[in-house]
Amino acid sequence: MKQRPRVVILGGGFAGIYAAMELEKAVRKGEDIEIVLVNKENYFVFQPMLPEVISGTIGILDVVSPIRRLLPRTDLHVRDVEEIDLEKKLVITSPGFRPHPHVIPFDHLVLALGSVTDFRGLRGLPEHAFPFKNLGDALNLRNHVIRALDEASIERHDETLRKQLLTFVVAGGGFSGVEVVAELNDFVREVARSYPGLDPREIRIVLLHGGERILPEVAERLALFAQDILMRRGVEIRLKTVLEAATGDAAILRGGETIPTKTLVSTVPSFPHPLLEALPLAKGKNRRLLANRHLQAEGRTDVWALGDCAVVPQTDGTPSPPTAQHAIRQAAVAAHNIVATLHGRALRTFDFKGLGKMGALGHRSAIAELPGGIKVSGFLAWWIWRSIYLVKLPGWGRRLRVASAWSLDLLLPAELVQLKLGGSRGVTQEHFEPGQEVFRQGDLGDRVYLVMSGQAEVWRSVDGVEECLGQLEPGDWFGEMALLNETTRGATVRCTKAMDALILPKSEFSVLAANLPDLRRSFERVMEGRRGGAGMGVGGKRDSV
Amino acid sequence: MKQRPRVVILGGGFAGIYAAMELEKAVRKGEDIEIVLVNKENYFVFQPMLPEVISGTIGILDVVSPIRRLLPRTDLHVRDVEEIDLEKKLVITSPGFRPHPHVIPFDHLVLALGSVTDFRGLRGLPEHAFPFKNLGDALNLRNHVIRALDEASIERHDETLRKQLLTFVVAGGGFSGVEVVAELNDFVREVARSYPGLDPREIRIVLLHGGERILPEVAERLALFAQDILMRRGVEIRLKTVLEAATGDAAILRGGETIPTKTLVSTVPSFPHPLLEALPLAKGKNRRLLANRHLQAEGRTDVWALGDCAVVPQTDGTPSPPTAQHAIRQAAVAAHNIVATLHGRALRTFDFKGLGKMGALGHRSAIAELPGGIKVSGFLAWWIWRSIYLVKLPGWGRRLRVASAWSLDLLLPAELVQLKLGGSRGVTQEHFEPGQEVFRQGDLGDRVYLVMSGQAEVWRSVDGVEECLGQLEPGDWFGEMALLNETTRGATVRCTKAMDALILPKSEFSVLAANLPDLRRSFERVMEGRRGGAGMGVGGKRDSV
Repeated sequence: MKQRPRVVILGGGFAGIYAAMELEKAVRKGEDIEIVLVNKENYFVFQPMLPEVISGTIGILDVVSPIRRLLPRTDLHVRDVEEIDLEKKLVITSPGFRPHPHVIPFDHLVLALGSVTDFRGLRGLPEHAFPFKNLGDALNLRNHVIRALDEASIERHDETLRKQLLTFVVAGGGFSGVEVVAELNDFVREVARSYPGLDPREIRIVLLHGGERILPEVAERLALFAQDILMRRGVEIRLKTVLEAATGDAAILRGGETIPTKTLVSTVPSFPHPLLEALPLAKGKNRRLLANRHLQAEGRTDVWALGDCAVVPQTDGTPSPPTAQHAIRQAAVAAHNIVATLHGRALRTFDFKGLGKMGALGHRSAIAELPGGIKVSGFLAWWIWRSIYLVKLPGWGRRLRVASAWSLDLLLPAELVQLKLGGSRGVTQEHFEPGQEVFRQGDLGDRVYLVMSGQAEVWRSVDGVEECLGQLEPGDWFGEMALLNETTRGATVRCTKAMDALILPKSEFSVLAANLPDLRRSFERVMEGRRGGAGMGVGGKRDSV
Repeated sequence: MKQRPRVVILGGGFAGIYAAMELEKAVRKGEDIEIVLVNKENYFVFQPMLPEVISGTIGILDVVSPIRRLLPRTDLHVRDVEEIDLEKKLVITSPGFRPHPHVIPFDHLVLALGSVTDFRGLRGLPEHAFPFKNLGDALNLRNHVIRALDEASIERHDETLRKQLLTFVVAGGGFSGVEVVAELNDFVREVARSYPGLDPREIRIVLLHGGERILPEVAERLALFAQDILMRRGVEIRLKTVLEAATGDAAILRGGETIPTKTLVSTVPSFPHPLLEALPLAKGKNRRLLANRHLQAEGRTDVWALGDCAVVPQTDGTPSPPTAQHAIRQAAVAAHNIVATLHGRALRTFDFKGLGKMGALGHRSAIAELPGGIKVSGFLAWWIWRSIYLVKLPGWGRRLRVASAWSLDLLLPAELVQLKLGGSRGVTQEHFEPGQEVFRQGDLGDRVYLVMSGQAEVWRSVDGVEECLGQLEPGDWFGEMALLNETTRGATVRCTKAMDALILPKSEFSVLAANLPDLRRSFERVMEGRRGGAGMGVGGKRDSV
């Protein structure tokens, strides 16, 4: 062979990591190949335990394993993938410390990019719903929940805000949503006891599910068991209920009902990695890559597709569900077939139909469907769940850490430390629904808004009489005067047509206004042209563009 | 008494937390007071163990304790303090989820705001040096170090960049700097073994110290012991060396020598909280509040000053050093005196001279100066260090967790997971020194620059011939063309006079340019006016302002 053939694997989930592991086994047996793995994190997330990060039951780092330790013979590139060129057989990754283009040629390409949460097209969800997919999501949610409790405990005047802060909504009653709501419920109810200002009866935890019963993945008996457990622990289950939109203050259901909340988690929907859309490869349901039972992408002998980003037929012809057990078996077949292709040997076929299903319900309870149709629920299922996953966890060190954390958890109360990593949020967007207040007269001015779509009205109250000062339309700025003059808001802004707004926080606005003369001039013109005079402090028309 | 007197404590370090603890003791004995604590985090950081977060020896959450668990009778406000009004006896905190002003009246005020890292006035340090003061700092540093190793392991062409990535510089050889460099050195050298592409001999860990020997706080014998241990483990100690400036690529020493590095940690200098500057109270050395031996701020009977933000005389008249043991004793005296003042009883006097000093050197070594002048070093000192701090750690749960983490650490390799919490960095600033390249022709365009001060030149190389295209002065934009046209940089920009630049990352720039017509127009004018034509992609004069 001229040069060592290079296998480039994209993605560090179960499919990608296990494909690399299997290829490393081949290398140890003397196979002369180079393995490159590209993943945007330097760790592998043990997804089944991710919900436990919310409560801190296991240490935050215990749910993840450093990829370098798992794959000592693999060349790890901790980068985003920017482009895949199948014709030239190249992968281009994002720049690192220096903005050099970084190009990796491949002989074989393994596409194991998994799925991503994609709220596009769902009104207000991209801005206001928490996804729950990776470690960052879990930590963000945890921090936010603790912050909501901290704030609720000192909010004694504004009953509406207090209600929003103490209501937690999870949308999606599949495995993922159920595990998240179970952990969230246990966590909030336990730590709330440390807040003397909170009454446990004020706390609402709501699970929204479109179907007739939760957990469509398992038998009805187990689903009903899970529903019963969750309800007894205080979770409100809303069946046949679909989340339609979200604002910073509420979850909006189909039919128009709103649930006031500052915490909305959505575990649906997920799509394959957006990079795959541009690839000239056959796609199946939900834009997933079509793979044959050798794990080759349709029509290719050098491109392999596996895991959640692919449609892989099981033994009975139905597509593999997006589970770790399927990804791991697919990875083994793909790795074998890559080596076989290099030597011109016969390929193996993916032949697997699943071993069972398990879901944790928190507080020493779970459900499990085992091989042979055996159904287990409650403490026994929980014990099986823990044992199986402890063994599946890669590496002895990790197992020891998790086992020790689980043991301590039996003795110690839940953590309630809020881990902030600092850093400004930069420019953000928010969605408002009709009737919603953007801010209120008398509030502190801590940000500037630009209307991108929709409509709002400006109202000022003088001696108890409300007066409408004007309308805000797309392209209008508002809220900058309270910043420039460092006063409080001189009027209330209320949304009248579903509105999307761009937001600059005070800090960003000050730096930009100080250094961008054009921006400053534009604001100055707005201020001069303001009907209400210098004290209005809300907004109005930007001069003609 | 008309109403319960309210004691408001600002700051959740050793001084603030222990003052609240002592007041809670009084409440348990029947004292009828209300205790309010304002702190921007909901946890207390056990500062002596903070360096261990770098290596992940103990769990990230084990170094902190939730304040609510420590202080069940205290009303905790997790907010920043925005204003203190001594005349009206009010504290105003930053807004929470809703921007309402939040006002807390007090009868007694305890100022225990500690110190903050303040790099102002030090060229390039605010932009490029890592502080090491709180948990966020420790996590940021850890993440950055792992990222540098990840990048170095795949950087095979650019030798200069590789050297920068593998050099780690700590400025300041006091207790804090020594503990940080010891942990950093242990961590980098241990985890580097998991990177097949890294040669341990390429790694440089440098400690800069202005004095003749490190650790001026302890006896010479112990300092020399520490120097010896650190050097044997691979730390380069540069004595009589002062850090003068920093860029994104180097630490610049007084005298002009530069050390190429992407990682510069500075543990100096620290100042009292900026809020104290505006207070009409007497200040001593380094702008700290002058307190008498009753812990009252000079001239007040209702304002108390303690911990690192105050100058408190010890028994011998010298000011207390900024240590936990002093803060804790001051807190006890202050709490006692507040209750005494409420009842018109006699005040106690702070009478303490320190029990000793300890510093960890990593890998089972430490130094300690115990009472009676006993000096211990090496394993015994390390064992004493761990035992004392384990006992001092507040709460049994925490002790159990730390003890268990320490035991596991004897068996398991260091963690190397990089914990990113996501989120864009927003608008940032960078400092450049003469001769430094801002970017190079052919680089990817991932950000836009605005010159705030200093000067740079634009050079283009065509067929190996370099041509100067122009100069960039304050107010000039550059780098936007590569973004707008999505091409690579058409020229190299090199700093000629020490330059500060404002930076907008690609994502922020796109959102702003799409929504701020004034900004977009200003860029369009720059592009039209560009001498080099549309392909130049670097920058030039912005039109007249």
